[in-house]
Amino acid sequence: MENFNFYSPTEFVFGKETEREVGHLLKRFNANKVLLHYGGGSIIKSGLYDRVVKALNDENIDYVELGGVRPNPIDSLVYEGIKLSREEAVDFVLAVGGGSVIDSAKAIAAGVHYDGDFWDFYDHKAVVNKALPVGTILTIPAAGSEGSSATVITKESDRLKRGMGSNLLRPKFSIINPELTYTLPFWHTAAGIVDMISHIFERYLSQTQDVILTDRLSESTLISIIEAGRKLIDEPNDYEARATICWAGTIAHNGILGVGREEDWVTHGLEHQLSAVYDMTHGAGLAIMFPAYMLYTLDEDLERFYRLATTVFGVPSNHYHKKAVAIEGIQRLKAFYRALGMPVTLQEGNVKKEDFPTIMTLLEKNMGKTFGNFKKLTLEDAQKIYELAWE
Amino acid sequence: MENFNFYSPTEFVFGKETEREVGHLLKRFNANKVLLHYGGGSIIKSGLYDRVVKALNDENIDYVELGGVRPNPIDSLVYEGIKLSREEAVDFVLAVGGGSVIDSAKAIAAGVHYDGDFWDFYDHKAVVNKALPVGTILTIPAAGSEGSSATVITKESDRLKRGMGSNLLRPKFSIINPELTYTLPFWHTAAGIVDMISHIFERYLSQTQDVILTDRLSESTLISIIEAGRKLIDEPNDYEARATICWAGTIAHNGILGVGREEDWVTHGLEHQLSAVYDMTHGAGLAIMFPAYMLYTLDEDLERFYRLATTVFGVPSNHYHKKAVAIEGIQRLKAFYRALGMPVTLQEGNVKKEDFPTIMTLLEKNMGKTFGNFKKLTLEDAQKIYELAWE
Repeated sequence: MENFNFYSPTEFVFGKETEREVGHLLKRFNANKVLLHYGGGSIIKSGLYDRVVKALNDENIDYVELGGVRPNPIDSLVYEGIKLSREEAVDFVLAVGGGSVIDSAKAIAAGVHYDGDFWDFYDHKAVVNKALPVGTILTIPAAGSEGSSATVITKESDRLKRGMGSNLLRPKFSIINPELTYTLPFWHTAAGIVDMISHIFERYLSQTQDVILTDRLSESTLISIIEAGRKLIDEPNDYEARATICWAGTIAHNGILGVGREEDWVTHGLEHQLSAVYDMTHGAGLAIMFPAYMLYTLDEDLERFYRLATTVFGVPSNHYHKKAVAIEGIQRLKAFYRALGMPVTLQEGNVKKEDFPTIMTLLEKNMGKTFGNFKKLTLEDAQKIYELAWE
Repeated sequence: MENFNFYSPTEFVFGKETEREVGHLLKRFNANKVLLHYGGGSIIKSGLYDRVVKALNDENIDYVELGGVRPNPIDSLVYEGIKLSREEAVDFVLAVGGGSVIDSAKAIAAGVHYDGDFWDFYDHKAVVNKALPVGTILTIPAAGSEGSSATVITKESDRLKRGMGSNLLRPKFSIINPELTYTLPFWHTAAGIVDMISHIFERYLSQTQDVILTDRLSESTLISIIEAGRKLIDEPNDYEARATICWAGTIAHNGILGVGREEDWVTHGLEHQLSAVYDMTHGAGLAIMFPAYMLYTLDEDLERFYRLATTVFGVPSNHYHKKAVAIEGIQRLKAFYRALGMPVTLQEGNVKKEDFPTIMTLLEKNMGKTFGNFKKLTLEDAQKIYELAWE
């Protein structure tokens, strides 16, 4: 087990009707002027927008608003948010939405007190030293941004999709009401499930040995996500399954399932280029890339893949043919993603083979010539993984 | 799943030699004058005391010290700590030790800014509105106080052992170096293991249905603790097993394994009277009381005990005789505690039958006439559980 810091200071307020507490929470965290940040019309249609505005008014909390965050949030809206926040002397950013809205909110929170271009943080030319406090009301369980230090923004001009993290950007509070997710199109529920599973895999596929407690907690969370995911295919309004997905999505990315291990995140890197080129849903891209990555890296730690197959995917043990068992586990992961309606090949994801060179160029630009921890990969390896993912 | 708040803001700094970071951490949390609070000579003998003092001096952090915390920490030392902290204008309490030292530090931290008698908090006549920040260097994995809101203090005059909790008392940081636990007498390691297992059981034995993710995380942690505990019987200096025990002890009590469920804590209540009368090690008392409590409450949720037996204790499934399987699970828990060298009956714990009336009187004084959530218990039930625990 490696040394680690685990710090997850967010207050998670979880359960039915908890969005009603947003006014009190903002008061407790000394918010005077709030930037209300959100995406499209779904929170207006569902009535959540009205409930939030009412909660703010009830507590006499002043606010300005900035909607329009898109999936794969872009830099231009962040610049707009920073400008607006400065002009209006905003002292708290409230994100109402999914990971894209929260990531955009974090970028604004980091940028307001920074003299330079906020993109410096994503370019790793600067680190966040001061940020506005952020709070969230989560509507899409997926990215885990409600409990994480991380944010991913796309620079439109260069199609650069980049992430950065700072403990200063961990939300002060996150309100998670599973009922708010009933109205999600199933596609988003499914893509969110893939995303949270991937957050666990990026930590689980590690060369650090002897972190058995973290491994077991990860496997338990994976089992619970898959079980709840299957349930939601038939019963999308099952509260307990929705609640499991919501909470699992949060702990999948607040750090608790990574402690003591070297993490990886290379598959996220492989995916980011796809969503940068095609504006693909992140979870859909991960459903394509992870099985291919796993098949490619199987021999790096066959025991681990064997354990994943038997413990999480219920493949019967067979000590004589561990590799076959391990591969069957990956096939079952693919089958689960298919059952959720996700694409599991690049073809199914409408990727064009003639775009491979563009993807590879972007990959090199974003990640360099070598990357990865579980297995050290070159650009050639990456090309092979994309090819494995083709069909 | 019930609505919940989960809030664990402590920064956990975990691993080898991490006590070296204490000076930097105190600086980061703006400590100017520290109360260095500890127990007996063990941290002096081990050299930890000197290392901590050096770290404070290196950062030019002023401090006063108060040693002498005993297991089952007492009110008189808390009064002394409050007086000293006021006189010396202490602005940070650093606890170096196990749960008793940390609990005593929390009591001092809560009392300094309170005009009345600090015991009011434990009497539930007052709530903590302001407290000094607390940091910890953990030397005994057991109580989980390094990540919890809770503190338990014994009022010597009345032999009242009482707990209270406040999020304001959650440590700002906790340094956990598993190597510091190598020199613990095995008795303390064993009692600590029982304590952390009991913290999970108090949450796991719940009537709240459908909190499957939390259940699975709890089972994974229990399996890991038992596995590491068995290892330490033979190899007390195994780093990975020590690390597992340390981290498991923290997450067993920071709240993550209780979310969404009604908790219980009645077995802690049954035990507290034993340690108040006999100054018994808390973990030893729990090793005696939990198996008896489980046998007494078996029929409240046989399915749960069946699952515990099969999943955690490896009892073979037998759907025709679930009760026998469940009982075998409890027997295996007892066998594990015996293997650790813990007493598992009141007789083995040197409790005297003629003291039963005293224990029952204390129990009523501390807990009233009815108590418990998993099963509602009366004083008569409690008497029967003590009798079940006799031999």
